[in-house]
Amino acid sequence: MSDDPNRIKALGGGSLLIAWQLKDKNVLIVGGGEVASQRVESILTADAHITVLAPASGLHPRTKLFIELRGDRVTHRDRQFEGPSELDGMDMILTALDDNELSNAIVKMSRERRIPVNAADIPDLCDFYFGAQIRDGPLQIMISTNGNGPRMASIIKKRLQAGLSGLEGQAITKVGLLRNKLKQRAPGVGGLLGRERMKWMSQLCNQWEMEDFSSLDDSAMENVLDKGWERGKRVPKPSELGISRRSTTSKSFSTTSLLLPSIAFFTGAVTATLLLSYSGRR
Amino acid sequence: MSDDPNRIKALGGGSLLIAWQLKDKNVLIVGGGEVASQRVESILTADAHITVLAPASGLHPRTKLFIELRGDRVTHRDRQFEGPSELDGMDMILTALDDNELSNAIVKMSRERRIPVNAADIPDLCDFYFGAQIRDGPLQIMISTNGNGPRMASIIKKRLQAGLSGLEGQAITKVGLLRNKLKQRAPGVGGLLGRERMKWMSQLCNQWEMEDFSSLDDSAMENVLDKGWERGKRVPKPSELGISRRSTTSKSFSTTSLLLPSIAFFTGAVTATLLLSYSGRR
Repeated sequence: MSDDPNRIKALGGGSLLIAWQLKDKNVLIVGGGEVASQRVESILTADAHITVLAPASGLHPRTKLFIELRGDRVTHRDRQFEGPSELDGMDMILTALDDNELSNAIVKMSRERRIPVNAADIPDLCDFYFGAQIRDGPLQIMISTNGNGPRMASIIKKRLQAGLSGLEGQAITKVGLLRNKLKQRAPGVGGLLGRERMKWMSQLCNQWEMEDFSSLDDSAMENVLDKGWERGKRVPKPSELGISRRSTTSKSFSTTSLLLPSIAFFTGAVTATLLLSYSGRR
Repeated sequence: MSDDPNRIKALGGGSLLIAWQLKDKNVLIVGGGEVASQRVESILTADAHITVLAPASGLHPRTKLFIELRGDRVTHRDRQFEGPSELDGMDMILTALDDNELSNAIVKMSRERRIPVNAADIPDLCDFYFGAQIRDGPLQIMISTNGNGPRMASIIKKRLQAGLSGLEGQAITKVGLLRNKLKQRAPGVGGLLGRERMKWMSQLCNQWEMEDFSSLDDSAMENVLDKGWERGKRVPKPSELGISRRSTTSKSFSTTSLLLPSIAFFTGAVTATLLLSYSGRR
């Protein structure tokens, strides 16, 4: 968020990364192969209703699995695309076809009806792109290289995952629950109280480690509110509340970084002692 | 991508994270305050044309700055929202207003015209949400907590940034350039050659460190192709090509992890020697 004029003048060349809301919306996927199976998974994550339009003979095993296991959300139409009426009532269209001509035609129909559309492998025809994703409960991370290769995106994904403790999703869930409890104690929308609630939550999030939240159960949350919010809106220390820190990636790193030098110090001392006592004996 | 049936049955509760394409599209932002200034920045990144509709008296300094510096992309209409005709020719609508009633009305108009819309602070009215973002050249990363607080998203953002070397964007750019050079040497779309190109690029990306790519200049890229692709499609080692590894976050970590134990070993040896010689002197 810098105000450097040169930076502002250079802004461009990217996409708008957004979290599209599909809850109970209708999504048509034309095709049933491997790419289609990836699309089904992404769309299931977003709680939409999915129609997979493809002959059964061409279904990828994972697409079949989704159709079998998620009949609550996925409908299979065992046939080819038949015409514009397939788009009726749809909120998003995805094609995953080898037939570029058909993909082109479907994109054109979608545009006429102003339905967002993605045609796999034909970036020029897409309203939006997919990217590599990390999911951990309420936490979703997307990595886009703006068309510079899915391979690099998946390498970046591994690098990012290595920096996460794996407790972030749980921590975010707990922060959400704590915020709801706070709202019950200090209800109302906006105003001074709303700002105070937001400020207290914000301080708590800044002063605690994310992992401190992940272990909070219901009574521990009440305890945070009793000893924090209710006592002059202070931020209690996790140790005050008997919250023991779980081991995390970064903590296991600091343990290692202390352990290794200790062993090395000990080894050095023993080596010198042995050498000296050996030379003393001669 | 596991096929665990329980995982598949539990898929849901998230959003669809996508990279929306806005190049030369028209985006209307109603409002000019701080949130609007953040929106202008996000939309400028995606190369759209922006209309900011808000009385000049209510513009945030950053919104003003964007209007001043990016006249090529940002048009300011110094007035209130006047009615549905404001939406003519628009491809996306964003409201950033204190007036919830007006936001509601604009969302309704947008829906009637099937224009994607986001109303700041009114999640129920949004077709899509924004999230915390990391940008490094062609690399864009988005962090969404699915409405569980921007504070947590920005903490996750810092955690992810700590795991990046800062050379990823440059590396991705270079990989893109290298891929183009390879296509010039071995042209054609799809087929066996296309698969071989993809396989070689993929092996190269897996065997090299991302940072090895970041230092490639034009002649070094030709060298990679000469000594790799042209010699039986092998993957050359960076050292073979005289590519010296730049220091990265992960490498400075491994240096530290070797250095500290060495110092500790030495200190241990010296301490033992001093202690022994002291006790010997008594």
